[in-house]
Amino acid sequence: MIRYPNGKTFQPKHSVSSQNSQKRAPSYSNRGMTLEDDLNETNKYYLTNQIAVIHKKPTPVQIVNVHYPKRSAAVIKEAYFKQSSTTDYNGIYKGRYIDFEAKETKNKTSFPLQNFHDHQIEHMKQVKAQDGICFVIISAFDQVYFLEADKLFYFWDRKEKNGRKSIRKDELEEAAYPISLGYAPRIDYISIIEQLYFSPSSSAKG
Amino acid sequence: MIRYPNGKTFQPKHSVSSQNSQKRAPSYSNRGMTLEDDLNETNKYYLTNQIAVIHKKPTPVQIVNVHYPKRSAAVIKEAYFKQSSTTDYNGIYKGRYIDFEAKETKNKTSFPLQNFHDHQIEHMKQVKAQDGICFVIISAFDQVYFLEADKLFYFWDRKEKNGRKSIRKDELEEAAYPISLGYAPRIDYISIIEQLYFSPSSSAKG
Repeated sequence: MIRYPNGKTFQPKHSVSSQNSQKRAPSYSNRGMTLEDDLNETNKYYLTNQIAVIHKKPTPVQIVNVHYPKRSAAVIKEAYFKQSSTTDYNGIYKGRYIDFEAKETKNKTSFPLQNFHDHQIEHMKQVKAQDGICFVIISAFDQVYFLEADKLFYFWDRKEKNGRKSIRKDELEEAAYPISLGYAPRIDYISIIEQLYFSPSSSAKG
Repeated sequence: MIRYPNGKTFQPKHSVSSQNSQKRAPSYSNRGMTLEDDLNETNKYYLTNQIAVIHKKPTPVQIVNVHYPKRSAAVIKEAYFKQSSTTDYNGIYKGRYIDFEAKETKNKTSFPLQNFHDHQIEHMKQVKAQDGICFVIISAFDQVYFLEADKLFYFWDRKEKNGRKSIRKDELEEAAYPISLGYAPRIDYISIIEQLYFSPSSSAKG
């Protein structure tokens, strides 16, 4: 039995071979861990092994009231969750700026675009304009996908033009790359970035 | 009289000419604005004018207790400030990863290194190892300075070897670049980055 540092148990749905590069991800709904937990473990692995420096941004909070008790730490007594104006994850890999958002759905047939909000899409477009590497990691249909921001913009713009409000399963399978799951790193999205942006022979999906 | 969006008044100590590229900064102790306010305005300017995408990270908070009242927003009732494991600002300029921390001192003769903590220095070293553009913005001695991370590491390592716990004023003047202050952008650190990392004729201070 594998235990993560937070004490949660890792229960793979089926055994995973490290040779096979495109494995199916266990569904997050059937596990004790969240996509966020797995990404934090992955980023910790990248950091420790000097592969990349990528962190999740803290949850933005509007602090209203703080108490300063004598001889102990300040206590925030009233605060509210704020909507983020950026994506949740960013950092650096081989000099390049990396920026992404992670989302999961339990839907069986499509990924709802309401998982994103306008500010995040706007931010991703700004990052692309500065030549950043920008994408989303989507956990859906028992698989973890790497979807480049440009592809997301296509589906988003279709929605904005009163088209469908979600990405169909077959559309996502066509546009995105499956991410191989492993033990360390759990969700090896850097290997996709390496293939897409650093390998001379590779090119992005058309 | 110039007012910032938050209603605070901007009071320059003396008039500033946009021709002169190395102006002296008004002291933050004598103004209604903080270094953070000015950097947020600067980053907003860069974003709006599609020069760079740089954001301050939210303050990290450990949330302990949240109330969910009916028909209104969730209220955080108990939370604590956490120490950040990274620097406060990061983002992208012309494809390159940008990472920095901002600090101010009212000391007259030196900049105390206790303004930084181990985790931040460690993070900056990780960023440099990935070929990121990493520096600190220091407001001290009536001037705003741009100090490259490598220079900061020199002073930090001296401290670790039981040397002095601060950077002397003359040392900072020697190692750092003064940042010209203006109205928009207020603290034009990107112009220093442009000169240091993107202009073929320029080179960093030795």
